Amino acid sequence: MRDVTVGLQGAVTNAVVSFRHHTVSIVALVSDQIRKGQQVIGFGFNSIGRFAQSGIIRERLKPRVLGVDPADLLFPDGSAFDPEALLRVAMRDEKPGGHGDRAGAVAALELAIWDLNAKLADEPAYVTIGRHFGYQQPTGTAAVYAAGGYYHGDSGMAGLREELAAYVDMGFDAFKIKVGGAPLQHDLERINTALEIAGDSSRLAVDANGRFGASEAATFGQAIAGLGLRWFEEPGDPLDFELLRGVASAYPGALATGENLFSCVDARNLVRYGGMRPGADIFQMDPGLSYGIGEYARMLDVLETYGHDRSQCFPHGGHLINLHVAVGLGLGGCEAYPGVFGPVGGYSRQCEIRDGQVKAPDAPGFGLETKQDLRPMLQQLGEGS
Amino acid sequence: MRDVTVGLQGAVTNAVVSFRHHTVSIVALVSDQIRKGQQVIGFGFNSIGRFAQSGIIRERLKPRVLGVDPADLLFPDGSAFDPEALLRVAMRDEKPGGHGDRAGAVAALELAIWDLNAKLADEPAYVTIGRHFGYQQPTGTAAVYAAGGYYHGDSGMAGLREELAAYVDMGFDAFKIKVGGAPLQHDLERINTALEIAGDSSRLAVDANGRFGASEAATFGQAIAGLGLRWFEEPGDPLDFELLRGVASAYPGALATGENLFSCVDARNLVRYGGMRPGADIFQMDPGLSYGIGEYARMLDVLETYGHDRSQCFPHGGHLINLHVAVGLGLGGCEAYPGVFGPVGGYSRQCEIRDGQVKAPDAPGFGLETKQDLRPMLQQLGEGS
Repeated sequence: MRDVTVGLQGAVTNAVVSFRHHTVSIVALVSDQIRKGQQVIGFGFNSIGRFAQSGIIRERLKPRVLGVDPADLLFPDGSAFDPEALLRVAMRDEKPGGHGDRAGAVAALELAIWDLNAKLADEPAYVTIGRHFGYQQPTGTAAVYAAGGYYHGDSGMAGLREELAAYVDMGFDAFKIKVGGAPLQHDLERINTALEIAGDSSRLAVDANGRFGASEAATFGQAIAGLGLRWFEEPGDPLDFELLRGVASAYPGALATGENLFSCVDARNLVRYGGMRPGADIFQMDPGLSYGIGEYARMLDVLETYGHDRSQCFPHGGHLINLHVAVGLGLGGCEAYPGVFGPVGGYSRQCEIRDGQVKAPDAPGFGLETKQDLRPMLQQLGEGS
Repeated sequence: MRDVTVGLQGAVTNAVVSFRHHTVSIVALVSDQIRKGQQVIGFGFNSIGRFAQSGIIRERLKPRVLGVDPADLLFPDGSAFDPEALLRVAMRDEKPGGHGDRAGAVAALELAIWDLNAKLADEPAYVTIGRHFGYQQPTGTAAVYAAGGYYHGDSGMAGLREELAAYVDMGFDAFKIKVGGAPLQHDLERINTALEIAGDSSRLAVDANGRFGASEAATFGQAIAGLGLRWFEEPGDPLDFELLRGVASAYPGALATGENLFSCVDARNLVRYGGMRPGADIFQMDPGLSYGIGEYARMLDVLETYGHDRSQCFPHGGHLINLHVAVGLGLGGCEAYPGVFGPVGGYSRQCEIRDGQVKAPDAPGFGLETKQDLRPMLQQLGEGS
């Protein structure tokens, strides 16, 4: 087990944070198996928007996982690694509650196991994931939208128009822009500008990144209520379920949230208390920040128990891992951040984007090696150099 | 700014985890000020029950804090360090939500600032804390109970009896024992055994450490409902507010929880959804695991807004820092884990324990240097050796 910390490209800012100093941990699990003359290595990372977790990975997870009999990490029939067994071992002596950085550290490791299993089976990860959880998705594609719509400073509306037009040229037909980082009137102008490019308001979502207090959120919701936007994302603090319920009771369109909830029990509280409406509102929990795909599947179970549908799920973090999760579990879709958050963010050249759909790579595993900007890092990490 | 990782003494186990591998980060803030011929150094640590946070401290917090103009960390009048300014700087580019390991890392740092401020003012930290938040507590003592009541393996009831009798000899008159790690009937025997020592059932609390599911919690509550115990602690997952509300609706005695909630917004959800009863139930949030004393004071504001009283607050983590917090903020009291969790856990010889009260040391700051087992580590850390 090895890990490396990588930075994120693209110095963008949302209403709350700058991503310039954000980092990601890539974990490599080097197996003793050979496929096509090459040692099989599983890679995973803890999504984007938070930080690398080398401290937790090296000090807590690594000694636990390497300290058990390797057979204890396999399925009973020895056919592959058991992600749930890994989770149990990795979480030994960890108390309940406090689902923060730890959830990302464990996720990077758990995702590497899925990559490893898929490579051992010589198939794309979405096939492995779909089979394991009983969702077969033979198409290999998922709906995708372009997230961005940043504040462009001096270039203002022209910069926003240019940005979204570039997404159209790339094959996107749905978009998400930032709001909450400017006065209301300015944000409304930005929305109108974006609508000129998006055409249909059902193709444009807005994201406040948790910036608003209750009354600001209500005011903003009221101001955009008549526009029929695709969704209004994270109006307030992600754990302020009362605020969300308040917005949900007054705002007629869809709301979206969940990217900052890192466990099944937190997601269940969102469902219990947040006023989320079955068949309408959007859940954006991110496996890479919340203990991996096993915990994410448990979240889906909770959502479905409360009458929601997995088509309402669009995981946060536009990258290959969540593309495979979206395809493999039959989710509503995934996001893309064109041009920023590389090398871990973004898709690879093999991922054709057309008519708002993105195709998962056919390479074994998550196909992270198909990303030109990521491949050299993975190679170095795999070689331990 | 320096930090060191220390282990915990005493290989005890609760219903969920072993503390044998738990660690703590001690942070030292070395000032350029001299008092009584000595350089003034502030020390803080992230309580007990979780893990050291050297990764987050070194990779995220340290560059942010050391990267600003030192004047930006002072109160406007330059009289002392401003813990809120420190918090803002330490949390730069951190997203909302995900209050886990990060909350402990920041807390260790924030607590070191309080220690430093108190030492610069040449007064015990509880005086500094009390003055800052407007609660003057001239007595310098707080109510304390002995937490323990471990599963003693082969020695069983005799071991438990011996353990509690030792606490009586130390000056304790209230106790807490573990439950949930054995079949119900065995736990009831343990409670009866403990009651023989405690005398009055109002002097004995039980702690399930979040072990039970909803029906087990209800069953256990029903089984102990007639005993009039001091409180029933953490029946289920600390974030399962619905479970707690269910227990609260049926169990007539006091419930206690909160030690695994690491932010004000999480604590507010407990108050909103957990069915906690004003004037009765107990809140155990721990400043050392939740961003420090500033965030803890915000939690108190939330509790009081919802009709609860600070006399219901007994912070988790039996150690000198939380003793100063309990005294300085006029809380219900604090806990003690005699004989385990040293060197950071426990009080010092200067802390007289009599009639269920513990006296805070008169030394400047938290008086961590008055702990014989901790002093050498602090000295080394302060010297950077």
